[in-house]
Amino acid sequence: MPVILVVEDQALLQSFVADALHDGGFEAVVASSGEDAVTLLKAHNGQYRALVTDIDLKGKMDGWKVAQHAREIQPEFPIVYMSGAAAADWTSKGVPDSVMLSKPFAPAQLLTALANLLNNATPTA
Amino acid sequence: MPVILVVEDQALLQSFVADALHDGGFEAVVASSGEDAVTLLKAHNGQYRALVTDIDLKGKMDGWKVAQHAREIQPEFPIVYMSGAAAADWTSKGVPDSVMLSKPFAPAQLLTALANLLNNATPTA
Amino acid sequence: MPVILVVEDQALLQSFVADALHDGGFEAVVASSGEDAVTLLKAHNGQYRALVTDIDLKGKMDGWKVAQHAREIQPEFPIVYMSGAAAADWTSKGVPDSVMLSKPFAPAQLLTALANLLNNATPTA
Amino acid sequence: MPVILVVEDQALLQSFVADALHDGGFEAVVASSGEDAVTLLKAHNGQYRALVTDIDLKGKMDGWKVAQHAREIQPEFPIVYMSGAAAADWTSKGVPDSVMLSKPFAPAQLLTALANLLNNATPTA
Amino acid sequence: MPVILVVEDQALLQSFVADALHDGGFEAVVASSGEDAVTLLKAHNGQYRALVTDIDLKGKMDGWKVAQHAREIQPEFPIVYMSGAAAADWTSKGVPDSVMLSKPFAPAQLLTALANLLNNATPTA
Amino acid sequence: MPVILVVEDQALLQSFVADALHDGGFEAVVASSGEDAVTLLKAHNGQYRALVTDIDLKGKMDGWKVAQHAREIQPEFPIVYMSGAAAADWTSKGVPDSVMLSKPFAPAQLLTALANLLNNATPTA
Repeated sequence: MPVILVVEDQALLQSFVADALHDGGFEAVVASSGEDAVTLLKAHNGQYRALVTDIDLKGKMDGWKVAQHAREIQPEFPIVYMSGAAAADWTSKGVPDSVMLSKPFAPAQLLTALANLLNNATPTA
Repeated sequence: MPVILVVEDQALLQSFVADALHDGGFEAVVASSGEDAVTLLKAHNGQYRALVTDIDLKGKMDGWKVAQHAREIQPEFPIVYMSGAAAADWTSKGVPDSVMLSKPFAPAQLLTALANLLNNATPTA
Repeated sequence: MPVILVVEDQALLQSFVADALHDGGFEAVVASSGEDAVTLLKAHNGQYRALVTDIDLKGKMDGWKVAQHAREIQPEFPIVYMSGAAAADWTSKGVPDSVMLSKPFAPAQLLTALANLLNNATPTA
Repeated sequence: MPVILVVEDQALLQSFVADALHDGGFEAVVASSGEDAVTLLKAHNGQYRALVTDIDLKGKMDGWKVAQHAREIQPEFPIVYMSGAAAADWTSKGVPDSVMLSKPFAPAQLLTALANLLNNATPTA
Repeated sequence: MPVILVVEDQALLQSFVADALHDGGFEAVVASSGEDAVTLLKAHNGQYRALVTDIDLKGKMDGWKVAQHAREIQPEFPIVYMSGAAAADWTSKGVPDSVMLSKPFAPAQLLTALANLLNNATPTA
Repeated sequence: MPVILVVEDQALLQSFVADALHDGGFEAVVASSGEDAVTLLKAHNGQYRALVTDIDLKGKMDGWKVAQHAREIQPEFPIVYMSGAAAADWTSKGVPDSVMLSKPFAPAQLLTALANLLNNATPTA
């Protein structure tokens, strides 16, 4: 199963996203802070197929920063942001070829966003 | 859950569409005529995230007209049409950036169509 | 239910793909060789809405050839390839407007790929 | 040279559009009313590769109607609209897969719009 | 003529870009620093239809920052970046729905990039 | 100036394409057979930014084969085909993410096709 790195600090949303991913056939690894996510990305580069991140996070690093780090590590890394109030900042703070899911969103929106990003990525042997 | 306005006058298709939406994590509000749909759109503008409409409807207003009204109320409103015989008229009677689902279609096609339209919409705070 | 022609010679993958399609509301007809698939496409042209094919197949005809035959029979036929090692050859051996799913992939990726190809196809009465 | 049917009733804009098309390597046939345009499309179906139409026209038929007629005659006909005040109505009155050029626009915008529509069209022998 | 704001501090590239824009029917206003560009965008919001910016600029503000400011002022503002060495940073530092032109690029690439961004923008009356 | 490799064996079309490219700011290197084109691609890999090829060529290698070779050498190489009678074969014989220009086409169509392919390519430092 393709593994997706999820960055979310609220237990309720962690379950919502992990369940949605599982129903679509993905495996979710959940990091509860941006700092943890970047550590995982650096340590296990190549293990994760995409990043799904909330914007507002407990630590010093918000979701915009996590995504930038992910793209510096792997320039074409698929990125999906989730946010309520911060969704309107996506056009100035998001990275190219990413998707912003405005809360509330349906699990089908998350799965379609991920699938489109993964299916458009260049296949490599 | 994001709420989708469904316009369909046949009970069997109402269930098919409502079940598909529910499985994808959407809530469905079903109007059984185009006139009812436009009344709901005018009364609760902002409550619905997208319109899913059949073309042939019992009243005087067909699905093409419902979609035009919806776009006059909200210029970028996501629209999905469903039809059998009338699907071929989409290129002359549909609105820009809409999707036509030719019957028979699978629930996954409806969910992907909706998710793509919602995910591409400009996020607003 | 829309019928999808699946070309796969391994029992495990046949089940994986057929289950995924069924969960999305599609019906799967499985051919276990490229030769069988082409025979079915020629005999029942118009019955299948899309082709999902593995690349490495037991017979003399690989998935690249099956897809080319399908497009010669019906020029806009929706094509989804599945492969591991051969995924990197898609840019030189695939047909235009097709999708390559790199193994391992999630069922949601297959459903989104198919739905996008079917939803973008020109509707015909 | 590919021939483009232009519908425009103002001499100044007729020249502007015809010059832009000519510079891009297209031939322009100019109709000064929607009625004339539809007559030409019916009489010489297959001769024109695309329609470029203003919205406000002198006769009873506006640009929205001309485009609908063109699509009824040829379902995938490439359409480019040009307008000032009426541009905002495109999302409710335009046809799918068309382009609206908001005045004032540059010749490069017209040429790119036409080229994209023609290049994406299915090639036929 | 649609007016494009160009941010470039080298005289040779200023001419190259201004000439290309002029040939495509655009008017170019050239700012020679990021700070000047932001001042112009704030003072004359609505006058410019798009931003074309180099990445390496003389002042403290590079092209990435200029684009972010432009998007904060107008959330859907069309952005085209031009760069040599910094082009590879676009996937982590660029804004969504922007275009990066890798030097050397042809005038036709600049015109097509701008035209696509302008033609896809929502028309407003 | 970005250099484009053109494969064309008719003098008249060589001039037409070379002039169009030059007007758009590209430099054209013309090979008069598919065999010559592949030799140039192998010898000077990285010098050419895109391939523009006719389908019917004098030697044993047609344009379909040249494009496949180009993609084997460089997996994402931008490809534009030009053809009259063979244009309808593009959906079965073309490579993914390529463009088919049906003759007769306008120079603006060639420039837009190339610019779109080059602008969408991943920038590399």
